[in-house]
Amino acid sequence: MKIKAKRCRLKSTKVSMNKYEEIKHSAYRANMELPALGLVVFTFGNVSAADRNQGVFAIKPSGVPYAELSPEKMVVVDFDGVTVEGKWRPSSDTKTHAVLYKHWNKIGGIVHTHSTYATAWSQAQRDIPIFGTTHADHNTVDIPCAPPMSDEMIHGDYEYQTGFQIMNCLKERNLSYEEVEMILVGNHAPFTWAKTPAKAVYNSAVLESIAKMAFLTERINPDAPRLKDSLIKKHFERKHGPDSYYGQSDEK
Amino acid sequence: MKIKAKRCRLKSTKVSMNKYEEIKHSAYRANMELPALGLVVFTFGNVSAADRNQGVFAIKPSGVPYAELSPEKMVVVDFDGVTVEGKWRPSSDTKTHAVLYKHWNKIGGIVHTHSTYATAWSQAQRDIPIFGTTHADHNTVDIPCAPPMSDEMIHGDYEYQTGFQIMNCLKERNLSYEEVEMILVGNHAPFTWAKTPAKAVYNSAVLESIAKMAFLTERINPDAPRLKDSLIKKHFERKHGPDSYYGQSDEK
Amino acid sequence: MKIKAKRCRLKSTKVSMNKYEEIKHSAYRANMELPALGLVVFTFGNVSAADRNQGVFAIKPSGVPYAELSPEKMVVVDFDGVTVEGKWRPSSDTKTHAVLYKHWNKIGGIVHTHSTYATAWSQAQRDIPIFGTTHADHNTVDIPCAPPMSDEMIHGDYEYQTGFQIMNCLKERNLSYEEVEMILVGNHAPFTWAKTPAKAVYNSAVLESIAKMAFLTERINPDAPRLKDSLIKKHFERKHGPDSYYGQSDEK
Amino acid sequence: MKIKAKRCRLKSTKVSMNKYEEIKHSAYRANMELPALGLVVFTFGNVSAADRNQGVFAIKPSGVPYAELSPEKMVVVDFDGVTVEGKWRPSSDTKTHAVLYKHWNKIGGIVHTHSTYATAWSQAQRDIPIFGTTHADHNTVDIPCAPPMSDEMIHGDYEYQTGFQIMNCLKERNLSYEEVEMILVGNHAPFTWAKTPAKAVYNSAVLESIAKMAFLTERINPDAPRLKDSLIKKHFERKHGPDSYYGQSDEK
Repeated sequence: MKIKAKRCRLKSTKVSMNKYEEIKHSAYRANMELPALGLVVFTFGNVSAADRNQGVFAIKPSGVPYAELSPEKMVVVDFDGVTVEGKWRPSSDTKTHAVLYKHWNKIGGIVHTHSTYATAWSQAQRDIPIFGTTHADHNTVDIPCAPPMSDEMIHGDYEYQTGFQIMNCLKERNLSYEEVEMILVGNHAPFTWAKTPAKAVYNSAVLESIAKMAFLTERINPDAPRLKDSLIKKHFERKHGPDSYYGQSDEK
Repeated sequence: MKIKAKRCRLKSTKVSMNKYEEIKHSAYRANMELPALGLVVFTFGNVSAADRNQGVFAIKPSGVPYAELSPEKMVVVDFDGVTVEGKWRPSSDTKTHAVLYKHWNKIGGIVHTHSTYATAWSQAQRDIPIFGTTHADHNTVDIPCAPPMSDEMIHGDYEYQTGFQIMNCLKERNLSYEEVEMILVGNHAPFTWAKTPAKAVYNSAVLESIAKMAFLTERINPDAPRLKDSLIKKHFERKHGPDSYYGQSDEK
Repeated sequence: MKIKAKRCRLKSTKVSMNKYEEIKHSAYRANMELPALGLVVFTFGNVSAADRNQGVFAIKPSGVPYAELSPEKMVVVDFDGVTVEGKWRPSSDTKTHAVLYKHWNKIGGIVHTHSTYATAWSQAQRDIPIFGTTHADHNTVDIPCAPPMSDEMIHGDYEYQTGFQIMNCLKERNLSYEEVEMILVGNHAPFTWAKTPAKAVYNSAVLESIAKMAFLTERINPDAPRLKDSLIKKHFERKHGPDSYYGQSDEK
Repeated sequence: MKIKAKRCRLKSTKVSMNKYEEIKHSAYRANMELPALGLVVFTFGNVSAADRNQGVFAIKPSGVPYAELSPEKMVVVDFDGVTVEGKWRPSSDTKTHAVLYKHWNKIGGIVHTHSTYATAWSQAQRDIPIFGTTHADHNTVDIPCAPPMSDEMIHGDYEYQTGFQIMNCLKERNLSYEEVEMILVGNHAPFTWAKTPAKAVYNSAVLESIAKMAFLTERINPDAPRLKDSLIKKHFERKHGPDSYYGQSDEK
């Protein structure tokens, strides 16, 4: 409480220095969730937090261990990937984040990890089949695995093109980024996004869990069928439909 | 000790406000065991604790993270699923709990999780074969996997019908809920129950452990035979028969 | 330091009450290692510590959670399985321990767990093949899996007969309990032993690790060959032969 | 800060006693990372730290549990494997370290573990295929698995020969130890190295992670192709090429 009060005072007197403070703190907190949830080790992975009014996002500095992170070290970048504040070099995946923020105007957070099971499915270049209600609670379709990138894309602006690879995959399958908030990039690893960085981190953890359960399901029963449509619809709508009844209503 | 004494005093002076206090604390403590045992993440899973004299049970509020739970947030519901106390919306699975409490009058606690290995068996739509004494210490039969619910049930009162799907599965197999305290719901996930919420949580952890061992057993030896009847009987009776000799006798 | 001094004083004045104190503390400490090493949950598993001069051993009380254990709760039993001190009922596996202590006069500690991977091999009724030096550092042979017990044994004095099943398995394979300190009982789970309870616990952890590595080895290469004799001999003798050079010499 | 200052003062007055202090502390800290990262249990594994000016390295004492380690217990050995300081017996794998330091003059740290997944690939006697960018971020080739050692080598100076087995494997494949900093020894377990002990420990953790992902990838898709050359090159050069842009530039 005290700290917050103090921070507010600082804000009013040093406005120019602090206009990115909220997203830097938000990005910092979300990044720190990744090792806590077992989704990254060392310097792997990165989370960004966007401020749509200012047209920028804060992202993890490249190659800095999580134990050494602080809100101050977050790098602020615009939606073209140009650094606007911060003395550190931003994550090497920054342009992928920038492309997605630029084209998907309702997302506020993006996460990239190399979490074990989701990465294994990416390396196997397979969509994750929807086998159960845990999956349906979050998505109505198989988790898409975008094909590995073309040599042309790789030799061009690689991370920038990774963003397009992700967008193109959803487009070709007629999927909306507002409904499907997670994807695998073939040979590479998962990306997730959401309206907030915290929800995007949640999506990364859910994806890892779904990826592990699907791996096990296929071992236990190689002929396990996909979940039937009625159950997919029911579970997704419990959480997300207009008549959703999971969680607490907003007025609480 | 001190805290207990204090709580008792409160009880005697504020009886009306506290008639559900015991089950709310009991449900709270049992819910908090789930993340500690690695059976849930985020808001997944729920435990309820019944008071048969009052015809109600306390259950986790829907979509609230475990770190934010408190006994006060537990919702009290009757055996028809109607909330009788609490300003939070109860777990979306509340009606499944209500149905089971209504029809199985010797249970006092129910647990639902999406624990990894048990859920994988549910998604694979297979009973968990009884391969060893760890299983037989707790059950004399394969852990049943109820079939996925029919479209009619799904389109009706889904969670209410889930309770009947569970009861029907046991009935069709001539199993008693007093002997088999765990089940998988096909495509979905496990449910466990017991005379107390703490024992129901124990059953969920045991089920996850059995599910993992059975998964590994089939990989190591695809022709592994089921446990023979004499060992099933012996191990179950060590713990549960009239001549059981596991644990401490009651008078201790 | 202080506590030790105090305990010594108590010893000298209350000799008769404390003649089992050392093994009770030793058994307690060794039992507490099991959950710390991830080898047991709840009340599963048990360790005993023998005092050969007095012809007794201290063992975990039956069905008591690890968090509630204390040295005082350990039960002292003679080598025929008769309780000589302690108000608690000893582990239901006590007679298995008693038989082994009675017949193998150089062991001072026994451990029984249902650790995940070792139990899976037991359920699969397979010996664990010696695939690498991690295994050879501790054993020169495949970890034996005793056959499931006969109906006659099960209907007789089951836990007593489990001890004989273990001894018979080693005998039939011409193995010495001083060289092979671990076994799987088919359909059941592992037992380990050693000169001290601490070493027997170490053996249980090593066995679980070997069991997991062997499981993975067979998945990665179904035709993986057993370790060749020269490497088996070399690694075992590094740690255990007369010219062993692993660890520190005794005079340190 | 204070402690450091104190240590510096000690250094200036007791030079002769402290000329190995830096590598002993460095080796100690790196060894303690192994259990923290889940790469070793008990006394398994060892890290060494070299001082090329003095022609020596500090290494873990043999068979001492991690909890009992201290910088003072590290043993200082020259590049022929002869102990030059320390009253403890050095790791039984010391000669393997010595050989590598003697022949590879740009490495400053070596790690040996029996980490689960990397050891399973060693036991399976298979190279770890390069399936994705996580692998390519660190290596451009499959992780080599050296063949099991010949009987002649085993009967000779075993640990000394293990060093040659590692060097010969890289030589035969035309690989540079400066580019490939990790290897599996068939039937045995992994070794990693780097310019610093900390980086060598990092390599061991990365190897374990890659080994697990590759294991899963082959299960999910037995026909999963190796990563294509353009992606291998791209990812490795992001981190290691002359135009690398991962991490922070040196002048920060």
